Amino acid sequence: MHHVIVPELDADNLDLAIEGEQARHAVRVRRMEPGEPVVLIDGAGGRALAHVTGADKEGPQRSWRLLVRIEDLQRHPRPTPAVHVLCPAPKGDLLETMIDQLSQVGATSWRPLETERSEREPRQGKMDRLARIAEESAKQCGRPWLLEIGPSISFSGALELPGGLIAQAGAPALARVSSDLVSDRRSTGIFVLVGPEGGFSEAERSMASEAGLIGVGLGPHVLRIGTAAVAAASVLVQLATDG
Amino acid sequence: MHHVIVPELDADNLDLAIEGEQARHAVRVRRMEPGEPVVLIDGAGGRALAHVTGADKEGPQRSWRLLVRIEDLQRHPRPTPAVHVLCPAPKGDLLETMIDQLSQVGATSWRPLETERSEREPRQGKMDRLARIAEESAKQCGRPWLLEIGPSISFSGALELPGGLIAQAGAPALARVSSDLVSDRRSTGIFVLVGPEGGFSEAERSMASEAGLIGVGLGPHVLRIGTAAVAAASVLVQLATDG
Repeated sequence: MHHVIVPELDADNLDLAIEGEQARHAVRVRRMEPGEPVVLIDGAGGRALAHVTGADKEGPQRSWRLLVRIEDLQRHPRPTPAVHVLCPAPKGDLLETMIDQLSQVGATSWRPLETERSEREPRQGKMDRLARIAEESAKQCGRPWLLEIGPSISFSGALELPGGLIAQAGAPALARVSSDLVSDRRSTGIFVLVGPEGGFSEAERSMASEAGLIGVGLGPHVLRIGTAAVAAASVLVQLATDG
Repeated sequence: MHHVIVPELDADNLDLAIEGEQARHAVRVRRMEPGEPVVLIDGAGGRALAHVTGADKEGPQRSWRLLVRIEDLQRHPRPTPAVHVLCPAPKGDLLETMIDQLSQVGATSWRPLETERSEREPRQGKMDRLARIAEESAKQCGRPWLLEIGPSISFSGALELPGGLIAQAGAPALARVSSDLVSDRRSTGIFVLVGPEGGFSEAERSMASEAGLIGVGLGPHVLRIGTAAVAAASVLVQLATDG
């Protein structure tokens, strides 16, 4: 079914006009007709089943608007504990692939992590593009909460977050993280730090250890940043899922 | 360090000549000099630290050969239990991304799974290309055993494999698979079936249930095939990793 991202859904406002590129796409590319069903997602827990009531052109630009009426509005709670992934941005397309996959597997947020061995953080234009990828991914996978993106954080800043885990070679498997650790973090969330391709530096590893971060391993192989981030998020979301 | 894939490593044969594209790349692109270290992987558990002893041109084509001498040869056992992923081939680049990621996270094999709702299996040329991606990935991540690829298998054939798991919406989280299930499968391996984008059909789901496959969930969102496969493999490899 066709999904559209909308501003916050509100039970007092069941008739909505969708504007911009999504409206043009629905009207001109998908040629949606009155009566056709559409799913609205506000990215903040709201998801609604709606149907198209019409389309018109508005404003000085005469841009398309898609008119819809909500039939059923549901609010989904945030998944708990939230799983936050912090890592340097992989290069090129690998960054966009990672964002899409983190969204699918159910991570709550991604922030660029500044480390000794990683390059500078993505520029604003890139970050804006990632936000659009998170929206597309939410439509694709039916995710009611958008993956939150950024801002970047320094390594020392990341050490101050509650209940951090740090992925490092040779540490015990992530799946051995006790269920207590997951349940103890229902309120604060779980923060997992993944290093750059060259790994964390000696200094970073000892800072993490002094700050009390738990070291976890992601298996015997050298993972690319994006794969490591997605593997860590998959395992943590699975460990955190009830039932 | 530079990695090269070689035929089976043998402690009785410490001087090797590497041929083909890998030799040309090492000599002409990387301009490796005598004395430089290189890692050799045979993809069947053998990994050796070696150094370059020279380079020459041989045969009617006058192709480059890279000459190396092994200093230290190690044999790595197969990881147990093996984690086998069976799923329809994702489309286009997503298939290659999946193969690279399954290799990194430590899956043992991938086979194309024929299902009611998936398209025909990849052609032989594509399967050959995937084998090369598995080799490149093994070099990149230092994996001593190559990810095994194919052949394709029918859904009913997959149901006869021992100890299968089937990923389906709404089933309990994969991480709840008991540690018994993992340890019971040290000899047979773990086979996880991931469905096509439209999911398994009603008929397939009841066949799997009758065949005794355990249903496992991958979270609340609709995952693309490749992401589902990588998430499942990540969790299973982590659950199977000792310590």
